[in-house]
Amino acid sequence: MAKVLKDPGVGYKSNSNAQRIIVDGKSNVRHINKPKSIDDLYTYLIEISWGLFLTYVLIGYIVMNIGFAFFYFFIGAADFFAPSGSFWLDFVNLFFFSAQTLTTVGYGAVAPSGVLAGFVSSFEALIGLTSFSFITGLMYGRFSKPKAKIKFSDHLIIRNFDDSRAMMFRVMNKRTNLMIEPELNAVINITEKGENGEFKRAFYQLQLERNKIMYLPTMWTLVHKMNEDSPLFKYTEDELQNLEAEIYILFKYHEEAFNQNLYQLHSYNFEQLKIGYQFGSSYAFDEEGFTIVDHDQLNYLEKI
Amino acid sequence: MAKVLKDPGVGYKSNSNAQRIIVDGKSNVRHINKPKSIDDLYTYLIEISWGLFLTYVLIGYIVMNIGFAFFYFFIGAADFFAPSGSFWLDFVNLFFFSAQTLTTVGYGAVAPSGVLAGFVSSFEALIGLTSFSFITGLMYGRFSKPKAKIKFSDHLIIRNFDDSRAMMFRVMNKRTNLMIEPELNAVINITEKGENGEFKRAFYQLQLERNKIMYLPTMWTLVHKMNEDSPLFKYTEDELQNLEAEIYILFKYHEEAFNQNLYQLHSYNFEQLKIGYQFGSSYAFDEEGFTIVDHDQLNYLEKI
Amino acid sequence: MAKVLKDPGVGYKSNSNAQRIIVDGKSNVRHINKPKSIDDLYTYLIEISWGLFLTYVLIGYIVMNIGFAFFYFFIGAADFFAPSGSFWLDFVNLFFFSAQTLTTVGYGAVAPSGVLAGFVSSFEALIGLTSFSFITGLMYGRFSKPKAKIKFSDHLIIRNFDDSRAMMFRVMNKRTNLMIEPELNAVINITEKGENGEFKRAFYQLQLERNKIMYLPTMWTLVHKMNEDSPLFKYTEDELQNLEAEIYILFKYHEEAFNQNLYQLHSYNFEQLKIGYQFGSSYAFDEEGFTIVDHDQLNYLEKI
Amino acid sequence: MAKVLKDPGVGYKSNSNAQRIIVDGKSNVRHINKPKSIDDLYTYLIEISWGLFLTYVLIGYIVMNIGFAFFYFFIGAADFFAPSGSFWLDFVNLFFFSAQTLTTVGYGAVAPSGVLAGFVSSFEALIGLTSFSFITGLMYGRFSKPKAKIKFSDHLIIRNFDDSRAMMFRVMNKRTNLMIEPELNAVINITEKGENGEFKRAFYQLQLERNKIMYLPTMWTLVHKMNEDSPLFKYTEDELQNLEAEIYILFKYHEEAFNQNLYQLHSYNFEQLKIGYQFGSSYAFDEEGFTIVDHDQLNYLEKI
Repeated sequence: MAKVLKDPGVGYKSNSNAQRIIVDGKSNVRHINKPKSIDDLYTYLIEISWGLFLTYVLIGYIVMNIGFAFFYFFIGAADFFAPSGSFWLDFVNLFFFSAQTLTTVGYGAVAPSGVLAGFVSSFEALIGLTSFSFITGLMYGRFSKPKAKIKFSDHLIIRNFDDSRAMMFRVMNKRTNLMIEPELNAVINITEKGENGEFKRAFYQLQLERNKIMYLPTMWTLVHKMNEDSPLFKYTEDELQNLEAEIYILFKYHEEAFNQNLYQLHSYNFEQLKIGYQFGSSYAFDEEGFTIVDHDQLNYLEKI
Repeated sequence: MAKVLKDPGVGYKSNSNAQRIIVDGKSNVRHINKPKSIDDLYTYLIEISWGLFLTYVLIGYIVMNIGFAFFYFFIGAADFFAPSGSFWLDFVNLFFFSAQTLTTVGYGAVAPSGVLAGFVSSFEALIGLTSFSFITGLMYGRFSKPKAKIKFSDHLIIRNFDDSRAMMFRVMNKRTNLMIEPELNAVINITEKGENGEFKRAFYQLQLERNKIMYLPTMWTLVHKMNEDSPLFKYTEDELQNLEAEIYILFKYHEEAFNQNLYQLHSYNFEQLKIGYQFGSSYAFDEEGFTIVDHDQLNYLEKI
Repeated sequence: MAKVLKDPGVGYKSNSNAQRIIVDGKSNVRHINKPKSIDDLYTYLIEISWGLFLTYVLIGYIVMNIGFAFFYFFIGAADFFAPSGSFWLDFVNLFFFSAQTLTTVGYGAVAPSGVLAGFVSSFEALIGLTSFSFITGLMYGRFSKPKAKIKFSDHLIIRNFDDSRAMMFRVMNKRTNLMIEPELNAVINITEKGENGEFKRAFYQLQLERNKIMYLPTMWTLVHKMNEDSPLFKYTEDELQNLEAEIYILFKYHEEAFNQNLYQLHSYNFEQLKIGYQFGSSYAFDEEGFTIVDHDQLNYLEKI
Repeated sequence: MAKVLKDPGVGYKSNSNAQRIIVDGKSNVRHINKPKSIDDLYTYLIEISWGLFLTYVLIGYIVMNIGFAFFYFFIGAADFFAPSGSFWLDFVNLFFFSAQTLTTVGYGAVAPSGVLAGFVSSFEALIGLTSFSFITGLMYGRFSKPKAKIKFSDHLIIRNFDDSRAMMFRVMNKRTNLMIEPELNAVINITEKGENGEFKRAFYQLQLERNKIMYLPTMWTLVHKMNEDSPLFKYTEDELQNLEAEIYILFKYHEEAFNQNLYQLHSYNFEQLKIGYQFGSSYAFDEEGFTIVDHDQLNYLEKI
């Protein structure tokens, strides 16, 4: 008999139109009354794309320069250069002066002469350097916090394997270096209608034939034998095809290039299940004897 | 019988007005004859708020500029510009020159002309860059060393659960991303008056129904069954309510956004104990079927 | 009987001229249809030599300055200085102006005067600082991601040891500090011709007399006893010498100087096997009683 | 019977005047024929004191400026300013110009005018920024790689404890924050004269009453019961006092302020052994009930 897991952290009850709790490895839960935190900002700036990140840097730079240019304009353009009489031309030149101060390029063709102008520009140079310290920190944070690079097969399959049925899925190393000590942990959540029409969730550890290997150069097929200990043992093919079930997967490995343990979450639901298929071969040899991994083969299924 | 833990690191004896050893996850112990260390400074600069940190940067900047301005004044303002005759005006301009040197903005409208002025300003520029290297390192240190973001319920509760009494507390993920592999370890310290009126501490591992889960998207209720193996088994409700006991908790999880294992310490004492209550539901569903976590619900208790 | 490992992540079938899957601790697998990723760029910039890295920095600097110099030339050299009439001289001076802007040195002898010149140079200074933020991040990434510094002996040996034959290899700490908690995991892959002429791979865990020690100041000889549980038990000397076998090794330890767990992969094949040899002594004492490690002794073999 | 450890990584043989292999947690082994590596440089720059590190920065700065000043002098001082005719004055001014370029302060009072002067100064500014990137990385490396802050008692003691003799030593948290999950592993090495006058080393795991606790706010006394399973069981007091034995200790804990697992090595030899003493109390209470840790008490011994 399959052993039910206690208190898996997501509750035992469900409702008819319940959404998945994990989608694409991210929490799909909504929060209310949640206080803001500065760590949220950092996490956001780390997780956005490089394009968006650099756009923010550029926008921040322009906004700060416009702000200081206004400030300098109110101090008086005459404290910086001989005013042209044109607001726009003077403002643009103060913008340039601000940019030269913020980046500390300081050509000096334009330089502050009065006391207030001197203080504000001294302060702006400090802000500039501190901001670039901040950006340097974020830069390093961005590329030293890599995402795990595991690709999961689009489908789960069920096929006969050895002396029983087995459910399988496949993972692939998206990078060319070796993943060290990959390890996979899977929990299955089966939601069934109770006697009174309510929806009940049950959670089970999904036993795998092997859940840790030494390194992963190519693909790895994970095999769950649907024997008597499996929570899926009692279902017919038709029932499996319509089962309201989700598999929550935690994959971890040591990434050599970054010297870090990386984690990746994934979930399958049973709409992704294909019965009576098998995965295509995960590698081939070329004429020189090298093992070939074709990244397009991950999802290749063959009807048995 | 509950098994006493040996040598838990805090001693077996106590006195009548003993303070708690951990408060808010921090050591509440006083140190004497402790030598200072530079790591203490680093730890301090990492742990203070951003406001205080930036204030120190600003103060340091002003103090250094005042210092160098004095230095330059003693060298002679004439080595930098045509002196105005006014001490204050000259001093302020030397302050600006120092700021331009420290930040390396170096407009050049003011520039050193003598040998000593040249040496000191060359040295100041080095100090400036080295200081900003230091600040950059601290910046990165600040946001790459996040604090664990677990919130503990204000109260411990005791209620009937299954076939015995159980003590429970609840933790919540304060952030919107998933906490990976959260794990909780708890030790209970019970202080009792010995036969000769002295105070004796005994420590026990607090057995939990489950102390590790795969991920934590919402809240998690920790359950200690008060069965025969529990150190709390022998006490009546009244005795429990007045028991001088503390629970020391170590919570750890893998934080995905930072790729780090984070630890959080917490402690409860039995003044926080409520008997005959239960926690309100830890989640709900909205009309679209999404799971909702209401951060204000963590401490919601219902009288049974 | 030796127990075959299931699903070691590299497949059970082979072909006649199969190449090794790991060479020098790197994946020797070829990838097709692999999408590019920015992490690949980062990994590349981290793993290249310091010479190549600094060469890229220099080339990037020159290319950016040439690009901006062209840009400024089209804006008009007259916006920066009194043109000389010579294209080359003006271009070179604009190159210098660009370099002064990108590095934020900004002498100011040359400074932008028009609006477009002002905007482009403001933007270039931003690009300069952002690029150096990026380089700073890479610098730190480079030396904070050290490679494990284990050297493996060139040869495997087989000799009589205690009451059975044993296969041995030796590892050496290439650095002068201690390696903390070194641990070694080895898998052996034996490829044999099947009944129908096809090549079959079988994988076995390689049992070692000891696979974890507290620290490694010098050399460490790993011993696999070829007793009944060994997959090598059944082979004669001649068969061993010609066996198509590979040993995949994962070595990990805690590097104190970097406060990190480091991993190193290695593989042996049986062409590296020497039967009837033993390793020379791994250390000696000098006249003061200090233990001496001679790095040239790692591969010293003695005929028995 | 105590069980001998196999292959502890330091060899079984010894000689009469053998030095200790670990002293102050560092390897005390001498290396010959060891190739140099750039990681050795990094490790060196990370491990030296702040004073020495900053001195190197200063020396590097001066040397680079002198070098470039010579270079500029050979190009011709006239390319930078109107030469004074005095070698020393011109050289010093070129030194200042170099400093202004290397730090990118670039006042511009002195600026390059010729083509060669322009190229060399453009290159110097690049070298300057790259060097400060390097220093920034080292700065962060320095304070993000903290040393474990455990202090070991100067002495080992042996006293009667419960129903047997016990050997004890004590460790103290040198910092004011909690050490999380401290864990200690100890191996004892006993060297005895063999039958033929040769020296033989035997290694044993040193069993401790408890070797892992949840956190360490104060001091922790480690207890090895000298019962039948102890390698020390068979010795009399006199023999123990003269035993040529060393204890190698690996201490690890999670440092909360740095979010890192830290390791510290230590070793005792039996010259540090005191028989018939006990440690003074490791803490006290002040009048407010706070636990007091007196850092000077770590080594306080009382004759029994």
